[in-house]
Amino acid sequence: MNKPVPSLKVHESDNVSIILTAGGVKAGVALDTGAVLLEDVPFGHKVALADIPKGGQVIRYGEVIGLAKMALPKGSWVNEHMIELPEPPDLESLVAPVEAPQPLPPLEGYTFEGYRNPDGSVGTRNVLAISISVQCVAGVVEHVVRRIREELLPHYPNVDDVVALTHSYGCGVAINATDAYIPIRTIKNIALNPNFGGEVMVVGLGCEKLRPEMIMNDDELTQSKMFMQEEELLGFGAITDRVMDQAREHLERLNKRQRETCPVSDLVVGMQCGGSDAFSGITANPMLGIASDLIVRAGGSVMFSEVTEVRDSVHLLPRRAANPGVVEDLVREMSWYDAYLAKGGADRAANTTPGNKMGGLSGIVEKSLGSVAKSGSSPIVDVIGPGERLRRKGLTFAATPAGDFVCGTLQLAAGMNLHIFTTGRGTPYNLPTTPTIKVATNSGLAARWFDLMDVDAGRIAAGEVSVEEAGWELFRLILDIASGRTQTAADKLGIKNDLVLFNPAPIT
Amino acid sequence: MNKPVPSLKVHESDNVSIILTAGGVKAGVALDTGAVLLEDVPFGHKVALADIPKGGQVIRYGEVIGLAKMALPKGSWVNEHMIELPEPPDLESLVAPVEAPQPLPPLEGYTFEGYRNPDGSVGTRNVLAISISVQCVAGVVEHVVRRIREELLPHYPNVDDVVALTHSYGCGVAINATDAYIPIRTIKNIALNPNFGGEVMVVGLGCEKLRPEMIMNDDELTQSKMFMQEEELLGFGAITDRVMDQAREHLERLNKRQRETCPVSDLVVGMQCGGSDAFSGITANPMLGIASDLIVRAGGSVMFSEVTEVRDSVHLLPRRAANPGVVEDLVREMSWYDAYLAKGGADRAANTTPGNKMGGLSGIVEKSLGSVAKSGSSPIVDVIGPGERLRRKGLTFAATPAGDFVCGTLQLAAGMNLHIFTTGRGTPYNLPTTPTIKVATNSGLAARWFDLMDVDAGRIAAGEVSVEEAGWELFRLILDIASGRTQTAADKLGIKNDLVLFNPAPIT
Repeated sequence: MNKPVPSLKVHESDNVSIILTAGGVKAGVALDTGAVLLEDVPFGHKVALADIPKGGQVIRYGEVIGLAKMALPKGSWVNEHMIELPEPPDLESLVAPVEAPQPLPPLEGYTFEGYRNPDGSVGTRNVLAISISVQCVAGVVEHVVRRIREELLPHYPNVDDVVALTHSYGCGVAINATDAYIPIRTIKNIALNPNFGGEVMVVGLGCEKLRPEMIMNDDELTQSKMFMQEEELLGFGAITDRVMDQAREHLERLNKRQRETCPVSDLVVGMQCGGSDAFSGITANPMLGIASDLIVRAGGSVMFSEVTEVRDSVHLLPRRAANPGVVEDLVREMSWYDAYLAKGGADRAANTTPGNKMGGLSGIVEKSLGSVAKSGSSPIVDVIGPGERLRRKGLTFAATPAGDFVCGTLQLAAGMNLHIFTTGRGTPYNLPTTPTIKVATNSGLAARWFDLMDVDAGRIAAGEVSVEEAGWELFRLILDIASGRTQTAADKLGIKNDLVLFNPAPIT
Repeated sequence: MNKPVPSLKVHESDNVSIILTAGGVKAGVALDTGAVLLEDVPFGHKVALADIPKGGQVIRYGEVIGLAKMALPKGSWVNEHMIELPEPPDLESLVAPVEAPQPLPPLEGYTFEGYRNPDGSVGTRNVLAISISVQCVAGVVEHVVRRIREELLPHYPNVDDVVALTHSYGCGVAINATDAYIPIRTIKNIALNPNFGGEVMVVGLGCEKLRPEMIMNDDELTQSKMFMQEEELLGFGAITDRVMDQAREHLERLNKRQRETCPVSDLVVGMQCGGSDAFSGITANPMLGIASDLIVRAGGSVMFSEVTEVRDSVHLLPRRAANPGVVEDLVREMSWYDAYLAKGGADRAANTTPGNKMGGLSGIVEKSLGSVAKSGSSPIVDVIGPGERLRRKGLTFAATPAGDFVCGTLQLAAGMNLHIFTTGRGTPYNLPTTPTIKVATNSGLAARWFDLMDVDAGRIAAGEVSVEEAGWELFRLILDIASGRTQTAADKLGIKNDLVLFNPAPIT
């Protein structure tokens, strides 16, 4: 008989383990966890380690990820067709801990090179951003951005890029509807992102519903705004000249900025996963958890997000709440999203994708347990709603949808200056304004997409590196990329995805 | 005493008239309609022609546009602050006419030069379009499109352009939610637009929720599709090479196409207005109504749209219904939208914009009465839902939101090969794939934005041209632009707005 094949059991109470062999394992082969396979099982998928009766609990991460729809004898393949989702955790049962959790021990001696802004925030890039108040002007603004890039940018070598922050909002929307505050504050807050250096340009049309006072702060910002419909603007030439002139003024100032040494406490890291597989929760996401803890220990800010991926693990979070308000806010955001989905005839189970399932995830509960691993082990100091700005240093739950572009856009609005994205299936995703480090959950993807992935977390499953070591590696890479010493794979290639607003209100 | 100043009374029963003088008219001045102004009244705004008591009807176009919130003595300025909206027309009271309306007399002898497609439709442009199944791939596809434009397009002189049909849908959405069929069929049908010559390229990722079978038809199309996650695609270089190779094949075939003489019955014209003012309903939109009638008489297809702008005039439409099904379908689409808005805490009054009001429109009823003037006088042969393809020649009501980009995108999905857009406030709007003729409702805008507007309908209010003459002019311009003999203002300038999907379903 052959040597048993290695597989991965995450928690001692688990009754499934994960196939680690590329290409899967054949029927009849024995696993190191004792089960002999009753059928072929693909890479990343689960095998029953004991006889699970119909209705019995399927346990991974020490948590119930589903109930068996049929008897699952030891050695059978366990996938999404064989389990029913349990009820989501009862939000009313969540209570704050009697004693607040201890903060992690401080970490000193780590810095990065960033652009200090007038409001105290720090940019990791030096970008001229042109915001718009309505899609009507997007075509003209994109046109001018191309001209600025070609004609002006070469004269301002310290400026990294010019970006149009285009979106589909601004008019043709129910601007006073209950939930319209979400896209509105998102647009407003994105312009305040630290990577834009407090130099805010807003180009509007003039007749739109989104009025300038709704999206311009008068904090410590150097602002310029214009409306294409202003009486003195005689046509396209005059309009584009005005945008070019205003851009020149902002570029002059941006160009004078220099990177300076900043403590890690000036980092604002947004974490996200997309195209997850069964390895997300045991390789890439725990690695992010370690890096998150290091940043928090060094005084920095970290966000984890994606309501539908936290919903089924939310019972694990109250014990990490730094104060009772965190639990109340978690419940508020979860309830809001439950109601939002229900109104549209859906629930949190709509989250999982065909790719997640091919990758071995048997539903949103299993996906969720892997997803929250990104948040590490530090206390949760705050919860913010979609499009809100971050208020506290430390670990914050920023409530957002799980869709990659919507989540990334909302984390930008929160003030993120560095983005980390884990993926098992693979995505070429990149934000246009902010470095986006991409972590592959498995080595197959990292090898195949050698020029699109930044980090191979599959080495953890292969035993080549510990989660702890990989987390430290990622922490150092974050400092290098934040400092502009290293470019992300997607930035080298010049890939830029769209910003996508979250608008739960109707359009007209 | 000075000579009375001209103003515009649209219908004999109206008790308001519209100020025609640029810059407005001062208090004390007499209008030709008899009223002496009690206060200064701006250009495009309304003046009471008789004493209107509190609660009395304000009448324009022979219809009640609102009820006076206060006594409005003869000569007073009547604007949105002084009137309350009446109840919208009762949908249950709409019934089909006893006798179907007579079709308009046929019009013969007009043709244009277009690209005939294998499915019988005709393109007005010869464009290579690359559709995507998910936003994840948008950054890479935009990158390749820039390369195709620079490296390949010069070798295919008969191909007008290459365009990425990017969107924010495809994953992170509740793909099985009740209303998800709308964005899905929209994406599918856009790829079938006649301007893409039946050459359909779809680039996907591989793990997304929007599966290829949901967005690929296997009609008479030459298709290619690829997924970036395919095992043999080793990184960015291999992925982009694959897209370039597929593009080359499609360009070869597109390049062989030649324009040929086509009857007007091959035209599919979508009409829309945006940034309306008080002149929209008396200059530009009636001019479009005449052009619409001419196209319909010549056997072509015309769409009017924008549910919230038809809602308050819907009682005027049943007498034009070619069959009872049209009335039923009108009621169905109006009811659906009423419910959609109500669910989000809004109603049809959320439609009007600050610009509409500055331009003299006192609410959605007045805006609506002006908006439906675009539909001319021909029978309404069909009603389609958002994202559906057109089924019949003649005049169709294509139910869409009124937001410009969403409406334009849905009309593209319906099969539009030429777009006409009227505006009073001014917008540089342009579709990236389809000629968009822009008609200014007033001469001030046409003069100020001389290089952004195609047509000055303000000449109608000035008495320089009749509505009939202007409609014929527009009809001839449509044939010229459809034939590629003339370029639109926005195409000359190279302005391209984004396509924007209508997704009434939740995201996850």
